[in-house]
Amino acid sequence: MRQSFHELTIATRGRGLVDFTDALEKWIAENQFRNGLITLHLRHTSASLLIQENADPDVCRDLDAFFARLVRDGDSQFLHTTEGEDDMPAHIRTALTAVNLSLPLRDGRLALGTWQGIFLWEHRVHPHSRRVALHFIGE
Amino acid sequence: MRQSFHELTIATRGRGLVDFTDALEKWIAENQFRNGLITLHLRHTSASLLIQENADPDVCRDLDAFFARLVRDGDSQFLHTTEGEDDMPAHIRTALTAVNLSLPLRDGRLALGTWQGIFLWEHRVHPHSRRVALHFIGE
Amino acid sequence: MRQSFHELTIATRGRGLVDFTDALEKWIAENQFRNGLITLHLRHTSASLLIQENADPDVCRDLDAFFARLVRDGDSQFLHTTEGEDDMPAHIRTALTAVNLSLPLRDGRLALGTWQGIFLWEHRVHPHSRRVALHFIGE
Repeated sequence: MRQSFHELTIATRGRGLVDFTDALEKWIAENQFRNGLITLHLRHTSASLLIQENADPDVCRDLDAFFARLVRDGDSQFLHTTEGEDDMPAHIRTALTAVNLSLPLRDGRLALGTWQGIFLWEHRVHPHSRRVALHFIGE
Repeated sequence: MRQSFHELTIATRGRGLVDFTDALEKWIAENQFRNGLITLHLRHTSASLLIQENADPDVCRDLDAFFARLVRDGDSQFLHTTEGEDDMPAHIRTALTAVNLSLPLRDGRLALGTWQGIFLWEHRVHPHSRRVALHFIGE
Repeated sequence: MRQSFHELTIATRGRGLVDFTDALEKWIAENQFRNGLITLHLRHTSASLLIQENADPDVCRDLDAFFARLVRDGDSQFLHTTEGEDDMPAHIRTALTAVNLSLPLRDGRLALGTWQGIFLWEHRVHPHSRRVALHFIGE
């Protein structure tokens, strides 16, 4: 049994979803991990990790549009507005989703379903650089 | 230290929650897992894994009714409607909840609270067959 | 490779967020865990575990106020009202967030970002005593 650590840096282009399944699979292949558990942790409070459909890009558009309607930018009831109208909505959108995920790895393949991709969901309006801590335990 | 993999198949009867704690505990007992970490990953983008109260069935009814009000079937703002009025709502309901869970196992027992059960939450209106990947690491 | 189990008990003062990162880090330091995976599981169905900003307390206030608006106490559509007006809202708020988390630990430090703290989010109006099961696997 062994462990391995890594960190991915993902550049976002502002609010929206970025599929980074390839970058994760590259790390797995390069290290020849075969069987174990992969854990991802996003080190930010205004973006999320999400497993969602990777086939139709309209799913990502609809997800983001729904969240924008659910949590209004510039809502006058927010006290925390230091970084602008999208600051508190980004924290709430993060709370409503997740910042960490754990996935079984078997025979070198993640246990993802046919249509599942792993996305970083940027909740801020402007582009950011986001760091995802990775951990593997297994063989 | 050892690992083990398995996959559960769970038949749903359309939208609603299915308690499958028993099936998970059966896998644990059959393999005599004692101490470790159990990870569950649902391989779909229109259903969720949820840990919730298993005592009063009204909790499940209220949960599903609340989500049906929060994310409207047939909302005219959705672009992704390929599989019908419940297609995009199912993806959003999945994003608002979770598709994977990790639970400590100690002395052969999951670290669940007294009232906690593990549910598969079907978000599509029609019945589906759902696959949950399981992973154990420990002793 | 070794494992360790523990349970934290956290007293809440009613609805709101309690940062317990210190208690978790104390357990890690006392046991001299260096590299591995830490998993937390909250053994309740009316409170959550949340990783969020620990700098401005207004973030916690806004989070709780948003959820109180999204899921109304005393909503007449709820069937499950045994324990009062905040009973079913607490279950829904739990479903919208999370009860378990997994975090990499490297060189004795959790993979948290600069502004990330680990919170217990009490969803009931009155104070409760909450139990968080902890698991470590690693070296």
